[in-house]
Amino acid sequence: MDIENTAIGVIQDLQELAIQTSDEKGAQRVAWTPVWDKAEEWFKTKMIAEGAEISVDSAHNIWAKFSGESEEAIIIGSHLDSVPNGGWLDGALGVVAGMGIGKRYGMHGVKPKKTIYIVCWADEEGARFGQSCMGSAAVSGTFTAEQAKCLKDNEGIEFQEALQPYQLKAENFSMARREFLAKPIQAYLELHIEQAPVLENAGKSVACVYGVAGCYRQYITFKGQQAHSGSPITMRQDAFLAAAEASLAFRDIGIRHQAYCTVGKVTVHPDVVTIFPGLCTISLDQRAIEGDVLEQIVIEAKQAAEQAAKDNKVTVSFETIWQTPPTIFDKSLKALCQKAVTEETGEDTTMYSGPLHDAVEISKVVPSIMMFAMSVKGLSHCMEEDTPIPVLKQAIRAFLRLTDHVLKK
Amino acid sequence: MDIENTAIGVIQDLQELAIQTSDEKGAQRVAWTPVWDKAEEWFKTKMIAEGAEISVDSAHNIWAKFSGESEEAIIIGSHLDSVPNGGWLDGALGVVAGMGIGKRYGMHGVKPKKTIYIVCWADEEGARFGQSCMGSAAVSGTFTAEQAKCLKDNEGIEFQEALQPYQLKAENFSMARREFLAKPIQAYLELHIEQAPVLENAGKSVACVYGVAGCYRQYITFKGQQAHSGSPITMRQDAFLAAAEASLAFRDIGIRHQAYCTVGKVTVHPDVVTIFPGLCTISLDQRAIEGDVLEQIVIEAKQAAEQAAKDNKVTVSFETIWQTPPTIFDKSLKALCQKAVTEETGEDTTMYSGPLHDAVEISKVVPSIMMFAMSVKGLSHCMEEDTPIPVLKQAIRAFLRLTDHVLKK
Repeated sequence: MDIENTAIGVIQDLQELAIQTSDEKGAQRVAWTPVWDKAEEWFKTKMIAEGAEISVDSAHNIWAKFSGESEEAIIIGSHLDSVPNGGWLDGALGVVAGMGIGKRYGMHGVKPKKTIYIVCWADEEGARFGQSCMGSAAVSGTFTAEQAKCLKDNEGIEFQEALQPYQLKAENFSMARREFLAKPIQAYLELHIEQAPVLENAGKSVACVYGVAGCYRQYITFKGQQAHSGSPITMRQDAFLAAAEASLAFRDIGIRHQAYCTVGKVTVHPDVVTIFPGLCTISLDQRAIEGDVLEQIVIEAKQAAEQAAKDNKVTVSFETIWQTPPTIFDKSLKALCQKAVTEETGEDTTMYSGPLHDAVEISKVVPSIMMFAMSVKGLSHCMEEDTPIPVLKQAIRAFLRLTDHVLKK
Repeated sequence: MDIENTAIGVIQDLQELAIQTSDEKGAQRVAWTPVWDKAEEWFKTKMIAEGAEISVDSAHNIWAKFSGESEEAIIIGSHLDSVPNGGWLDGALGVVAGMGIGKRYGMHGVKPKKTIYIVCWADEEGARFGQSCMGSAAVSGTFTAEQAKCLKDNEGIEFQEALQPYQLKAENFSMARREFLAKPIQAYLELHIEQAPVLENAGKSVACVYGVAGCYRQYITFKGQQAHSGSPITMRQDAFLAAAEASLAFRDIGIRHQAYCTVGKVTVHPDVVTIFPGLCTISLDQRAIEGDVLEQIVIEAKQAAEQAAKDNKVTVSFETIWQTPPTIFDKSLKALCQKAVTEETGEDTTMYSGPLHDAVEISKVVPSIMMFAMSVKGLSHCMEEDTPIPVLKQAIRAFLRLTDHVLKK
């Protein structure tokens, strides 16, 4: 099948999946729920029909194997799970593009030079148990048996209990790493929507993604003295205004360093109309593609928070939630990806990703590369998430070209 | 009894009340609860022992009458209810100072020229049903039968149900106004702690309070577009940063006009670490002692919010919660109050109040005046609320002088 017809088939399959796993509020493929199971069954049935050999590893990553002339293999993958009320493309695009490649090189197509695995990584979104990139992080060794045993969902159901229908044990998830390393895998390729409006604003449709920003997440708590809203302003120790000043300073730091600073969570206490807050906690998520920049913006944010605290006569404390260094993908795969994008679009569009992806985890164990399709307004994790069909087709075509180049390498 | 011994007695009674109605977290005299009932019983018993005639009006305001030579009357009052985990002085000071006056002019004292009522206004704090100054507002006509019928506490208990032990009907609360107007009342006097640190910072102990700031309360909602924390900052429509900019501008407006602007409630949506907020609602409480200033700061706040919205590419909407104009107390009572303060402290300290009090409501039906005692750090509504005993004594003495002046008028 040529790349044009393969791309058309991929879009048809994406639409079919959307119909089968969405309701009026959007996609409902939340990992470890029946709708997700349905999506995975759909994937397996389609791949078996193309002659794939299906296996499921200890972290519930689903592998569809298309044997090639050589046992040396490449992986095409992404995730089928979505957030609640999610979109039709986030994750699904990469898996279903992989399914297109499976059709192209499966029993009805041309036997590939190398073996191809199409993989659905389990629970990328972490929507139910709060652990992002679970399946791929089990492979990379980042998600450990100890972590697996501690997870609970919002209703208090333990992860192990949710695993019973899957005949899996939480403590065995880390075995997925050894199972992965036993295979002679050479490369990992992932197509994903951008989840930000960079491409749209630049008027581009497809990009080679050369890396993913590192991330530092913390809670910052300002503590002043709550009092009556009839107290003179100049005598106050207002914790919220300190947090407001700091948050605006964080934005300036992000802009100055061409990096990312986000205050996502905000809580004030006592949260009463007639009392100014004595306590305010905000979350700060900082990202940068260069390690030294990430380090610098974290330092500057601390200084800015301390300055805001001082200026408002309040105190400030910091609690790190999580951190990960920047990821720079494999250089030779990057060159092939740039080549594919240029061939398809006439432009060498190369960028890095702010959001994290399974490829960050997989790149720790095997050379990896990502490709982005433009996403309208950069929206994702909502039913408005969309990429126009012509753009989608172009992105899938470019990704098919990339796969061909990697198979020939 | 002379004013020195009366003042000492008032402080002893305040301490006794605190012991009987507080736990390790502070005062628990929340209106329409058993601890409040206990405080009221304590008040009635003490006043009956001094020869008072007790009555309860239709809004559950408790009246202790000490008949004078004339039926013409003055009222001394405040409230016995507290917030949960409240302080020992907020409200209680004014009532218990009144009890001291009752002792001075009761059966064991000198019959006064005018009749004196010591009144406990019901539910000033609105801690359980959210309606502040309920008893005094029933008297002024601000709290209507319709409002009374709609109130519910946090557990969904209707106000009418909570009233059953008191043999009261919510729809009859407004009758308190006619009951009040039937009495030949000439003046209302209220002693209260300051609830802000103005006096402490000025090194003063007691002040004549010539008025209470008017107030305008609203919710302001900024609506942008939530997206991933990996989206470039300059492309965002961050609703929280718009609210942060507006909140800092509100502070500047307040300072510039020597008025009050308070952001007390803050809610962001979706309130997730990895998503910048698409929605942020804040409350804004604005106060000023001059009507035109209040009007001006409300206009400027609207402009500032609109500017912040524009600068952040988000929209903004406004929802008024409540408003009340400034109160300026009676001029001749003010002169007597200034005289009393000057006699007692050697200084003519006069100020207005940012916080609201029962006197705002009562001043709508009868000439009124307030006196403030300094409060340490301006703290109230917490167990740390305090006024040093010597200062407290001085304030009570000044208030006793004021009462004497008004009785002689």
